[in-house]
Amino acid sequence: MGLFDGVLARGGARAAVADQAWLAAMLEVEAALARALARAGVISADDASAIEQATRVVEIDINALGAEAAATGNPVVPLVETLRAAVVGPAAGQVHRGATSQDVLDTAAMLVAGRAIAVILEDLAAAADAAATLARAHRDTVMAGRTLLQQAAPVTFGLKAATWTTGLDQAAERLAEVRRTRLAVQFGGAVGTLASLGDDGLAVLSFLAEDLGLAEPLLPWHTERTRIADTAGALGSAAGSLATVALDIVLLAQTEVGEALDTSAGRGGSSTLPNKHNPIAAISALACARQAPGLVATLLASMAQEHERAAGAWHAEWRPFRDLLVTVGSAAAWTRDGLEHLAVDPSRMRANAVMTGGLLLTESVATALAPAMGGPAARKVVARAAAAATANGRQLLDVLAADAEVTDVLDPSALARLLEPEAYLGSAHSFVDRALAAHDAGRSTKPA
Amino acid sequence: MGLFDGVLARGGARAAVADQAWLAAMLEVEAALARALARAGVISADDASAIEQATRVVEIDINALGAEAAATGNPVVPLVETLRAAVVGPAAGQVHRGATSQDVLDTAAMLVAGRAIAVILEDLAAAADAAATLARAHRDTVMAGRTLLQQAAPVTFGLKAATWTTGLDQAAERLAEVRRTRLAVQFGGAVGTLASLGDDGLAVLSFLAEDLGLAEPLLPWHTERTRIADTAGALGSAAGSLATVALDIVLLAQTEVGEALDTSAGRGGSSTLPNKHNPIAAISALACARQAPGLVATLLASMAQEHERAAGAWHAEWRPFRDLLVTVGSAAAWTRDGLEHLAVDPSRMRANAVMTGGLLLTESVATALAPAMGGPAARKVVARAAAAATANGRQLLDVLAADAEVTDVLDPSALARLLEPEAYLGSAHSFVDRALAAHDAGRSTKPA
Amino acid sequence: MGLFDGVLARGGARAAVADQAWLAAMLEVEAALARALARAGVISADDASAIEQATRVVEIDINALGAEAAATGNPVVPLVETLRAAVVGPAAGQVHRGATSQDVLDTAAMLVAGRAIAVILEDLAAAADAAATLARAHRDTVMAGRTLLQQAAPVTFGLKAATWTTGLDQAAERLAEVRRTRLAVQFGGAVGTLASLGDDGLAVLSFLAEDLGLAEPLLPWHTERTRIADTAGALGSAAGSLATVALDIVLLAQTEVGEALDTSAGRGGSSTLPNKHNPIAAISALACARQAPGLVATLLASMAQEHERAAGAWHAEWRPFRDLLVTVGSAAAWTRDGLEHLAVDPSRMRANAVMTGGLLLTESVATALAPAMGGPAARKVVARAAAAATANGRQLLDVLAADAEVTDVLDPSALARLLEPEAYLGSAHSFVDRALAAHDAGRSTKPA
Amino acid sequence: MGLFDGVLARGGARAAVADQAWLAAMLEVEAALARALARAGVISADDASAIEQATRVVEIDINALGAEAAATGNPVVPLVETLRAAVVGPAAGQVHRGATSQDVLDTAAMLVAGRAIAVILEDLAAAADAAATLARAHRDTVMAGRTLLQQAAPVTFGLKAATWTTGLDQAAERLAEVRRTRLAVQFGGAVGTLASLGDDGLAVLSFLAEDLGLAEPLLPWHTERTRIADTAGALGSAAGSLATVALDIVLLAQTEVGEALDTSAGRGGSSTLPNKHNPIAAISALACARQAPGLVATLLASMAQEHERAAGAWHAEWRPFRDLLVTVGSAAAWTRDGLEHLAVDPSRMRANAVMTGGLLLTESVATALAPAMGGPAARKVVARAAAAATANGRQLLDVLAADAEVTDVLDPSALARLLEPEAYLGSAHSFVDRALAAHDAGRSTKPA
Repeated sequence: MGLFDGVLARGGARAAVADQAWLAAMLEVEAALARALARAGVISADDASAIEQATRVVEIDINALGAEAAATGNPVVPLVETLRAAVVGPAAGQVHRGATSQDVLDTAAMLVAGRAIAVILEDLAAAADAAATLARAHRDTVMAGRTLLQQAAPVTFGLKAATWTTGLDQAAERLAEVRRTRLAVQFGGAVGTLASLGDDGLAVLSFLAEDLGLAEPLLPWHTERTRIADTAGALGSAAGSLATVALDIVLLAQTEVGEALDTSAGRGGSSTLPNKHNPIAAISALACARQAPGLVATLLASMAQEHERAAGAWHAEWRPFRDLLVTVGSAAAWTRDGLEHLAVDPSRMRANAVMTGGLLLTESVATALAPAMGGPAARKVVARAAAAATANGRQLLDVLAADAEVTDVLDPSALARLLEPEAYLGSAHSFVDRALAAHDAGRSTKPA
Repeated sequence: MGLFDGVLARGGARAAVADQAWLAAMLEVEAALARALARAGVISADDASAIEQATRVVEIDINALGAEAAATGNPVVPLVETLRAAVVGPAAGQVHRGATSQDVLDTAAMLVAGRAIAVILEDLAAAADAAATLARAHRDTVMAGRTLLQQAAPVTFGLKAATWTTGLDQAAERLAEVRRTRLAVQFGGAVGTLASLGDDGLAVLSFLAEDLGLAEPLLPWHTERTRIADTAGALGSAAGSLATVALDIVLLAQTEVGEALDTSAGRGGSSTLPNKHNPIAAISALACARQAPGLVATLLASMAQEHERAAGAWHAEWRPFRDLLVTVGSAAAWTRDGLEHLAVDPSRMRANAVMTGGLLLTESVATALAPAMGGPAARKVVARAAAAATANGRQLLDVLAADAEVTDVLDPSALARLLEPEAYLGSAHSFVDRALAAHDAGRSTKPA
Repeated sequence: MGLFDGVLARGGARAAVADQAWLAAMLEVEAALARALARAGVISADDASAIEQATRVVEIDINALGAEAAATGNPVVPLVETLRAAVVGPAAGQVHRGATSQDVLDTAAMLVAGRAIAVILEDLAAAADAAATLARAHRDTVMAGRTLLQQAAPVTFGLKAATWTTGLDQAAERLAEVRRTRLAVQFGGAVGTLASLGDDGLAVLSFLAEDLGLAEPLLPWHTERTRIADTAGALGSAAGSLATVALDIVLLAQTEVGEALDTSAGRGGSSTLPNKHNPIAAISALACARQAPGLVATLLASMAQEHERAAGAWHAEWRPFRDLLVTVGSAAAWTRDGLEHLAVDPSRMRANAVMTGGLLLTESVATALAPAMGGPAARKVVARAAAAATANGRQLLDVLAADAEVTDVLDPSALARLLEPEAYLGSAHSFVDRALAAHDAGRSTKPA
Repeated sequence: MGLFDGVLARGGARAAVADQAWLAAMLEVEAALARALARAGVISADDASAIEQATRVVEIDINALGAEAAATGNPVVPLVETLRAAVVGPAAGQVHRGATSQDVLDTAAMLVAGRAIAVILEDLAAAADAAATLARAHRDTVMAGRTLLQQAAPVTFGLKAATWTTGLDQAAERLAEVRRTRLAVQFGGAVGTLASLGDDGLAVLSFLAEDLGLAEPLLPWHTERTRIADTAGALGSAAGSLATVALDIVLLAQTEVGEALDTSAGRGGSSTLPNKHNPIAAISALACARQAPGLVATLLASMAQEHERAAGAWHAEWRPFRDLLVTVGSAAAWTRDGLEHLAVDPSRMRANAVMTGGLLLTESVATALAPAMGGPAARKVVARAAAAATANGRQLLDVLAADAEVTDVLDPSALARLLEPEAYLGSAHSFVDRALAAHDAGRSTKPA
């Protein structure tokens, strides 16, 4: 684990994309290729076995491989040489048959991505479950709704958590779809014709895809990178959906707001301040999610690849693709952690909701006045009362109760009821209920 | 049309996202809202008619609206005021009932995006058709396949054009899916509870979605921006798939390559050079596509939105969302244009393919030698011959024919056949055929 | 003014980069070129006068120019044709002599950028002055320092505002340096040799630079874009320095914090909520600043330009370069506005600072205990007391005063003094004083 | 060395920013802080020695440190604990005195950046020297100038290489300036007041800066990140200047162009194609440089940091800052390598320049005709001839010599001279000479 990995590479995605995992995937591709070649009758079953066996026992020095990669521009060339040397007998000559370096690296990237996405989906699902649990538990917990970071009108914490749930579910659904449909085998040989396999190319391609559990593409996608871009886009969306949850948590945990607390034991201390209790999980989630957009941009900008294989743009994908999986995976793991350890304080929520002496309910009063005096006039009357209450430090109720234009329409008890946040929640409960029903049914969107 | 729009804002997307289009969409939303309110029984049918009528006749000074937007942070507030003033009678008070500014702007953005994407899809489809036509016409046109911008082995121009087709089709398919599933109405009122509508909120939401032909979301998505992000991601993928086509065209059109020509009449001249014939369409497509990744990154980075409505991140979406639609639309229009006017020169393609005296076929010879001498040894023999041919300016055929290791295995006529590019195309034709079949069937991927 | 320009294009930068400004700059370049050609003896003084005169009276239809630009890939070709047609007599043939389209467009871009940056620098300077005024006025205003959005230890508002000042000054200093040293004339002719001017090229280049008040480059920079990149980088830094100020303001203005208020009359209202008072200036500044990083990335990614003039990457600069100037200019104008209208509430600041019953001063107590019991032990004792105070809702003072380990070292009055935020400000005043002295002296950094 | 590091992390920058280097820098900061505290009289000289000694001998398990960092959000907290445990005697309590975690990490980042930039500057300087050597050697080597990837008019390879030189020099100059002026010590304690040091804070700050050879900031820059942004911007510019060189090399090395060759022994082979000779250095440089813009964008987008220390945006800087140094360093190392091993082929350059039968010189002819017939008319005549020559496969000279409008002005021998590329180079030599003079004098720009 690197110096910054505790913060920036949490969860299983880091291991899923580590050098060892990548190397293992490349060897899996070579083994699967040998099997596919044998199945298509291009090489013998014995040769395939010998190659497969070698991929299991060959010892690779990643450090050396990395260094040798500089000579040819990728690590597959020295890997294939090492593997050939490890194969007993004439099968050595059949290693990597028909393939080009990019075939192996791209296919390995798809395997690696598939596994990393599986880990990410697990954390996204757990995070969404935790958010749904919060939404259910706090379906009726009233709090101030805030727009542009100003208190605006009442909401429930349930509504906020349900919105988190839906966002996470939508991101997960897209990511799962990408995993299911867009991760494909790459196999085209030097220039995408599979020429060295004569007429057997398509059969080998098909067997290879089947063997590895990846989609079979219509044709090689050496320079047609929509698969990479779609994966990047889905990861970028996921990062954003995680970031907005984490940002809300950090804002709710502010000392002056105090509505949420990260309850993880032994976490959040400061090197200098004994009083601090930082919401580390949410903060770290934000830190990780923020790195995604730049990485997505790099991958999208690398899509313009020349002719049959690119002069640099392909190589430019390797690091950002890996880093994107790690940083989104880490954001997911941290957000899950933050949600699973989130304690909310309903009494503080209610206290904050009424701290302005009723200003949170101005729309409620204006809406009640509107039928009698018209919407714009009602808003003006209430705005005037709100300004007076603010300026003089009075409760809005008192100011309104002293305003004849208001009392002509509403009696004191009606006014008081209008200023209860619980009474002005509109469809909040219904929204929560349908969002939770969808979540429970494994959907992120409303059924058509 | 602005100074740079001829180059950077080609096609219909510019008009689809222009201020006038945006304004019209906002008025459509207000009209549809009035109808939905009436249908839900919140307001009278007469009031709805009066509002609808006003949206049709109200005259808006966009310049003034833009200026007034500065006071409240968005153009909806002054728009609603103007609209109210245009409504005859008491219905004025029902304008915008239950909605917040972001409801109108977001829903209008979805309408605008839907229309712009329709235009883009049309250009993408035409571009893919043009590429497919080229692939069909040049299924057998041999050319040099190039990897890392070096001639590598033979391909067909059909294979290249088929790969373009598939890339464009995949981008279009995703964009169409986003349009179908991710463009949703926004309606939540001030804080997402629709409180001012009492118990009628969900009914109005549902009617509004139906009226506008947009999806109905589970709950308001004021700060849950996966819909924007998914749209941005799909546009980013499309930009990349367009860019790789355009880049190939520009490279094929190089004076020294000369395999492709932009045949548009009256285009591509230079202010100083009478001899120039620039492939303007492809160049402009590249210029437009290159602007997408940064815009996507801005939209993704804006996903972290605070609480019930964001303090800046929402506003930060407006310009990049619009610019992204324009620049991808323009890239699509230019690429379509470039493909529809692309002339390729098969004789120059073949001439280039044989210009190195057979070096393009080294893999072919090595593959033929491999059964007898093993793959690695075969590659070494051929590499030695290739180096000798290059160093001494000789034809590869002559060098090989003088090499006993080679002639032990292959006789001169076999050697000559191996050095014909037409004889070493592997699965190129099959790939083209299945790609075209899929394109004709309206698919971008292989059926499962 | 466009629909969103009230929010997203505030201040003078929009006008400075508008089509009209760009067109005027291109005509200035053509006029200056004519003068330089005459001065170098390439054309006659009369011809230069005729051309100059034409640049003043020619009427250009920007709409038509934009449309015609599509044929050649840039608007200079049709502009030159129009200008030639407007020149009386044989001088028409001397229009644009020696230049290529990119010479005119790049040089005009430098003029436009110089003017836009001048506007931005004015707003940055005014913003920094406003911040400095706040720092001076609130040198002694105590408030809670917040780290990771948790109250941590006392600071002064003066320190915060001084940090804003220094950030803005540093951004301005760099931007001014870029304007002074990196805005250069572009003049190379078709391929950078100025061949059509024979031996007179360098003289014309030199005169042209002098005439326009731009730097003279060593050689043409048609594809050497560090000047654009450096300008973009400086604008990106400025955006970030503005964003961090605006973000602080938005956070301070939160209802629950209430330490800052945007006092602009008639601004910040909501379409639905009469009680809202949104800090529109800071919010808009954030919205604008957030768009900069993606634009900078696009400009940096466009630096790789081919050979003598690029096939798309140059064209890809136009819109992001312009948009970057606008969005940073708008962020500067809004931040200036926000700072000039910022009211802070010292009593609320102090109330917030003591709201946790002394927890803000735990470091102060720990530091006082450290000499007697060692730093780590002291921190442990204080952390224990802080936890107890938090858990039981007691004042930290009371808990500490009941702890024998503490009272062994500190008597009650010493303890009480340690819990006064005013007594634990360290070097805050000194930092403010030296920052203000530097600002007053026109420096953003400490003199060596 | 990681799997991809041979390609993506060449040169010394990778080691300069490795975990070990970062850890060493953090320990240096703690040691320097102890010395500064002693010099200011805050702690004893003996305590400082004990701490300094411990920083030299303490054994840190980076893996464990990384894991523990998750609890507090950064690796400094566990590092300080480990260091304290390694200090003999009471000095342990003085470790990290007055500092906060970010002080140590930011200052270490500046040390690390300074060292990485030193390595990068060395490679940039060597690359510029290699380019200058090429420019000098090929001052008179004529080749086709290419605009929009079409042959346009003659240039010299010297001019191209001189432009590379100037671009690299400008990037290096800015990067050196950033290193000299913008790398500063960070020291503010918990909230930037240095309160725990009482009145001694500024003295310690000043001594610390002096000790570490870093600039002393006016005040803490915990959330004022223009220093990071300026460094990122300079690295981004450098990446672009490297990319444009590398792109030119890759384009010149195309099989059909053949003007440049990467002569490194044992490099550029292919896993399947014995004939390939890929310009690996330039390709890898492009791959590395392409990753910079997205990383710069992430760093710029992270500048908006809250209050006294940020909740995530600071942590979001760590990986992109490091990766940016590595990828730009690697691009510099590869470009240097590519330039130092670049062989150009003057005869192929000339052959390409004349391959179009004179079309490269159309401007030359038009310029010569212009005095007699006017510029536009001259261009028309030549364009007509160029079109005829292209259409009929004739030499331009022959077509022109048969055109009475031409021969009225120019006799056959004059025409022939005009079609010599050597005769139409304008100021190319002068540009090269002044660029080389500036390079030799250590300047990247023209003296004022």
